Amino acid sequence: MTTSTTFLGLGAMGSALAAAALDAGRPAVVWNRTPHRAQALGARGATVAPTVADAVTAAPVIVVCLFDHESVRGVLDPVTAELSGRTVINLTTTTPAESRSLAAWAAAHGVTYLDGAIMAVPEMIGAPGAAILYSGSGAAFDEHRALRDVWGDSSFVGADAGMASLQDMAMLAGMYTMFAGFLHGAAMVHAAGVPATEFVTRQAPFLAAMAGQLAGFAATVDAEDYTGEGQQSLRFTETALATLLRATAEQGVDPAVLAPVHDLVVRQIAAGHGEHGTARIFEEIRRTR
Amino acid sequence: MTTSTTFLGLGAMGSALAAAALDAGRPAVVWNRTPHRAQALGARGATVAPTVADAVTAAPVIVVCLFDHESVRGVLDPVTAELSGRTVINLTTTTPAESRSLAAWAAAHGVTYLDGAIMAVPEMIGAPGAAILYSGSGAAFDEHRALRDVWGDSSFVGADAGMASLQDMAMLAGMYTMFAGFLHGAAMVHAAGVPATEFVTRQAPFLAAMAGQLAGFAATVDAEDYTGEGQQSLRFTETALATLLRATAEQGVDPAVLAPVHDLVVRQIAAGHGEHGTARIFEEIRRTR
Repeated sequence: MTTSTTFLGLGAMGSALAAAALDAGRPAVVWNRTPHRAQALGARGATVAPTVADAVTAAPVIVVCLFDHESVRGVLDPVTAELSGRTVINLTTTTPAESRSLAAWAAAHGVTYLDGAIMAVPEMIGAPGAAILYSGSGAAFDEHRALRDVWGDSSFVGADAGMASLQDMAMLAGMYTMFAGFLHGAAMVHAAGVPATEFVTRQAPFLAAMAGQLAGFAATVDAEDYTGEGQQSLRFTETALATLLRATAEQGVDPAVLAPVHDLVVRQIAAGHGEHGTARIFEEIRRTR
Repeated sequence: MTTSTTFLGLGAMGSALAAAALDAGRPAVVWNRTPHRAQALGARGATVAPTVADAVTAAPVIVVCLFDHESVRGVLDPVTAELSGRTVINLTTTTPAESRSLAAWAAAHGVTYLDGAIMAVPEMIGAPGAAILYSGSGAAFDEHRALRDVWGDSSFVGADAGMASLQDMAMLAGMYTMFAGFLHGAAMVHAAGVPATEFVTRQAPFLAAMAGQLAGFAATVDAEDYTGEGQQSLRFTETALATLLRATAEQGVDPAVLAPVHDLVVRQIAAGHGEHGTARIFEEIRRTR
């Protein structure tokens, strides 16, 4: 019989993770601070644990999916002794430094620690397209493949426990700015009576195609050579963005999303790099180190 | 024999447009303020016109691709009389209001006006994937299909001469913010020793997939209903963006690109919409009208 897995935290994502395990025929022990979500999983065959200590001692692997770093510490600290010798797979959204601090805490108390970052919404768990990045204990990653596989596609990105979270955060930064940029464009055309549903039929495939340009930017950044052939110069981009900002103002749209991009370009031009490629924005963004 | 086409302005894009016509066997008359680019096209078979007036009177269709709106007026104003009865296809990057002002000027002087916005870099002209939006004279759009087809895929987006430029600008707003968001993420992982060329192998397909989420945002925006099922709430997004900003600070990366997105979310929550969907950023961006 398959070993039980314990799930601490049954929000939308935690419930989806536990449900996927149950659907795959894996025994699950569940705990949540407020009990109604645990009861829902109990109806699907999970064992509902009355306390965190009961949940932790019921299985060798503890999957943690709580609100934030503070809530993870709040739930795990009182059961430190019980966790010794077990494995924690922490799928809570945390910063890289927070993940590293949990890994250090785990190491100090004989707990094996695997950190995960979920690149999916709860509805996607267990379905094609759900991707989860892991970092920390490579041994735990290897050992718990059958469990990982019920959730989605897994990638191990390093022994540094913060690396999964870092790559997740970096990817979400691009996603949220793309979302905001799309809504900026939708607001521009909306002011002229063009529905967003019409605009998106051109914009979504255009952005997907332009994502194909990013590999070129990446090569430029890694080579630290912004002078090569075929790069759109910062000066050209500045003119384009200035025109975009005039058009934004014409449409009565808030420039909040776009103006900072123009500012970054202007700052690099002021530093003497106007004829360099636009990927040089990278140098401006990382300037505070 | 195919009628000649005149090209005013032979920067990288203007030269690509004229070269594509020549390659398709279409006679071209070319003019540029500085002559060396005209000579290069002359070597490929174009007729080099010594003056703007000579160029304009040599063909019924005048393709204009200059630096900006001011340079268009500066070049065309002195030949207003010669332009009467001819067609101007203006592919210069201008704001919608600038395009409309040129259309009004053209109408006042018996000039047929078609405005175009090129969604491509010069290297793409004449190759698959080059898209050009047009607005203004539908009759001119229909009549000059053979010419349009040598450049790329054409779409007519309205009789309002500013509409092609507006849709172009709106699409580029999304593109530039996506580019900046990618470079933000690349700076985050770079600070931990991950090359941008490694990061992009995950990020480019992820962003292309996430572009598929935009249709849902668009439907929400058009319905003006941010309360429906399945929308990620502004409060959830605020927590995610706050975590992202903490991770950004941990990596020593400038938050310039991401902080404004967080601000928009915070402002909508402050206005009482925390449980509404994240597409509601749209309402914040268009608030200045």
